[in-house]
Amino acid sequence: MIQANDPSLTSWIEVPAGSDFPIQNLPFGVFRTPINPSPRLCTAIGNFVVDLPVLNYMSVFDELDFPPDLFVQPSINGLMKQGKQQVRKLRNRLAELLSEENEEVRKNAWHFLHPMEKVELLMPVEVGDYTDFYSSIEHATNVGMMFRDPANALLPNWRHLPVGYHGRSSSIVVSGTPFHRPSGQTRPKDDEPPVFGPSRQLDFELETAFIIGRNTELGQPVSTAEAEDYIFGMVLFNDWSARDLQQWEYVPLGPFLGKNFASSISPWVVTLDALEPFRVNGPEQEPAPLSYLQFQGARNYDIQLEVAIRAESGAEKTVCQSNFSYMYWNMCQQLVHHTVNGCNVRVGDLCASGTISGPTPGSYGSMLEIAWKGTRPVDMPDGSKRSFLQDGDTVIVKGWAEKDGLRIGFGEATGQVLPAL
Amino acid sequence: MIQANDPSLTSWIEVPAGSDFPIQNLPFGVFRTPINPSPRLCTAIGNFVVDLPVLNYMSVFDELDFPPDLFVQPSINGLMKQGKQQVRKLRNRLAELLSEENEEVRKNAWHFLHPMEKVELLMPVEVGDYTDFYSSIEHATNVGMMFRDPANALLPNWRHLPVGYHGRSSSIVVSGTPFHRPSGQTRPKDDEPPVFGPSRQLDFELETAFIIGRNTELGQPVSTAEAEDYIFGMVLFNDWSARDLQQWEYVPLGPFLGKNFASSISPWVVTLDALEPFRVNGPEQEPAPLSYLQFQGARNYDIQLEVAIRAESGAEKTVCQSNFSYMYWNMCQQLVHHTVNGCNVRVGDLCASGTISGPTPGSYGSMLEIAWKGTRPVDMPDGSKRSFLQDGDTVIVKGWAEKDGLRIGFGEATGQVLPAL
Repeated sequence: MIQANDPSLTSWIEVPAGSDFPIQNLPFGVFRTPINPSPRLCTAIGNFVVDLPVLNYMSVFDELDFPPDLFVQPSINGLMKQGKQQVRKLRNRLAELLSEENEEVRKNAWHFLHPMEKVELLMPVEVGDYTDFYSSIEHATNVGMMFRDPANALLPNWRHLPVGYHGRSSSIVVSGTPFHRPSGQTRPKDDEPPVFGPSRQLDFELETAFIIGRNTELGQPVSTAEAEDYIFGMVLFNDWSARDLQQWEYVPLGPFLGKNFASSISPWVVTLDALEPFRVNGPEQEPAPLSYLQFQGARNYDIQLEVAIRAESGAEKTVCQSNFSYMYWNMCQQLVHHTVNGCNVRVGDLCASGTISGPTPGSYGSMLEIAWKGTRPVDMPDGSKRSFLQDGDTVIVKGWAEKDGLRIGFGEATGQVLPAL
Repeated sequence: MIQANDPSLTSWIEVPAGSDFPIQNLPFGVFRTPINPSPRLCTAIGNFVVDLPVLNYMSVFDELDFPPDLFVQPSINGLMKQGKQQVRKLRNRLAELLSEENEEVRKNAWHFLHPMEKVELLMPVEVGDYTDFYSSIEHATNVGMMFRDPANALLPNWRHLPVGYHGRSSSIVVSGTPFHRPSGQTRPKDDEPPVFGPSRQLDFELETAFIIGRNTELGQPVSTAEAEDYIFGMVLFNDWSARDLQQWEYVPLGPFLGKNFASSISPWVVTLDALEPFRVNGPEQEPAPLSYLQFQGARNYDIQLEVAIRAESGAEKTVCQSNFSYMYWNMCQQLVHHTVNGCNVRVGDLCASGTISGPTPGSYGSMLEIAWKGTRPVDMPDGSKRSFLQDGDTVIVKGWAEKDGLRIGFGEATGQVLPAL
């Protein structure tokens, strides 16, 4: 039987060199078209979107015995609830149908293939709870150096547990959705009262997120050995941040309006299965974590990450090149910590990594760090400078894993900053 | 036409003296019975639950032109989406049907009335996002005195904005749901490494919460004048807290595992309409807040709140008597602040008050404050003492508004602490 991950597989659909979507990827998303505006499930191959309800109508998934309306849904939550085994079978069957020699559906390709630029990609997941971690040691250190004590940049708890907090689900939007610069309270001078107005320190945060694919019960902790059974896949994530709002509001209960005005997600959920060839070890953890956080095997992934800013003038500059493998705490540890107190997770919950910064300035994952609190502004190709984002700026986050000629990509998570209302 | 709020109304159903549910209340909830296990909508009167799908089947709501399946749902979200005007008409129609002189459905009462003790009350709302505020000045001051500087107990931002943070929706459970004492990391001694084990400082937090009844769009702020249009009603809320977990984890991003293992909600959503007679002014706000937080009229409510602990021995003691009117920041200000940056809210979102403490020790809303960080343990009638909660303890939160012989109550939010797993 064909395995979607087989690196030797090729497809009868053209996959251009450098494409994020070879036959080995087969991520899941939700789309609609002008002709059929019902949100429905799809996968991607090359420059095409594959219309899953149409394929299903051709009876090619009958052996999988899915519920009849599984693919005509506004999210992939129902598909995830089928379980990893079923989704694995679906990806393998898709790889079979799309593979070079297969003729089963090829003649009817025009029925189920849509050029990607012709469709509207929608939010892939109905997110119940959104949790944001803070798991890059370089990011936490940079922020600690800027805002607290350079000699003791990491707080005492940081190396003992994956620090995290709850974020806002309602304002997670799919790539391509613009949003207005947030307004709110800031206190420009420490000895004066706060003022109200548009944020002057609007930032991006380069993150990834994992999507929960299996429910737990309240009270049920997940072990590091089991954790991957609960992680369906990953997306790119930009946790837009208004640093000036955040700085005034965040004591003692954490970020609120400085974060919850918008977060952008990539439209494709890449399965953990597709990322399997890119497993790597993470950084050494010192001191060794408490036993519930210990794990076996390689639990990080070598995923290249990149952020570009495109000004309204069209001038574009790559401002960050980072890698998911820098993460100090891995996704399994994050999930295990999250549930160790009995907190339950539900299919569709999203757990973001926190800003993923690397060891060098070129790998910092936020403008706060790149321009070092405004002291090292970035030169844009049009001659303008950036310490934070300007109105009209589009931020483009990209991510892909690449090895031995195989590239598994996430596409993009983009968003444009509109002026404050 | 009959108005549900008319204080002179009486019902042909007996409403015992001191009941939370006179004909003027008519809160909304969700229930099921052994004979019909489908979750469905109900209201309460006296000691009875009113089965709304059955009444609807009798065609008594036909003039309201509701969707056919509105009342056979696992939450009241669909009902709330009908809008305040429609819900007002429904409450008025219910008041008419249940009023003393009315004979329309009285002969068929046994079809739609269930003794409350015979039904199972379920989660009334599907909660999208849960936000917890921190709006009692007495609570914030007490906590600041205990953990920070007694001379500067309130942080600089507190009197300028309603501090809030995002909580966990998945672990909100309906009254009566027991939960296990959470385990996690704590650091008993500041100069030693953290340890893992069951929380030793498990606490309750006396809160109320309001439920969002109308969506906003991303980017759309709500003004204080409009805010009440977006607030459907209120519930009792117990934000269980593990103080020792919280203290170790909460810097710099706020509470996480110290809170997200369980929160308890009362099964009845009392409409703002029913609370109308109990409007009062809140505390003077000094300094005057920024203009976006200013408001007209009385925006607090005189709601009495009470917490009792029942030990496994059966010994029960009321440990707190507080009042919702102590809240420094009112619900309208909370919602306005929440949306001022463009953060959108959705029907079903829950915004909790934060612990509602009053000015005297008898009115403190958490064991942390009542026993003042363990220095003033509470004597229970069975001779045991409490600084925090013990396994087997049940915490019972009650709330009601009362004036001129009219009592509008919330029922209870209870929960029992089971031993750690």
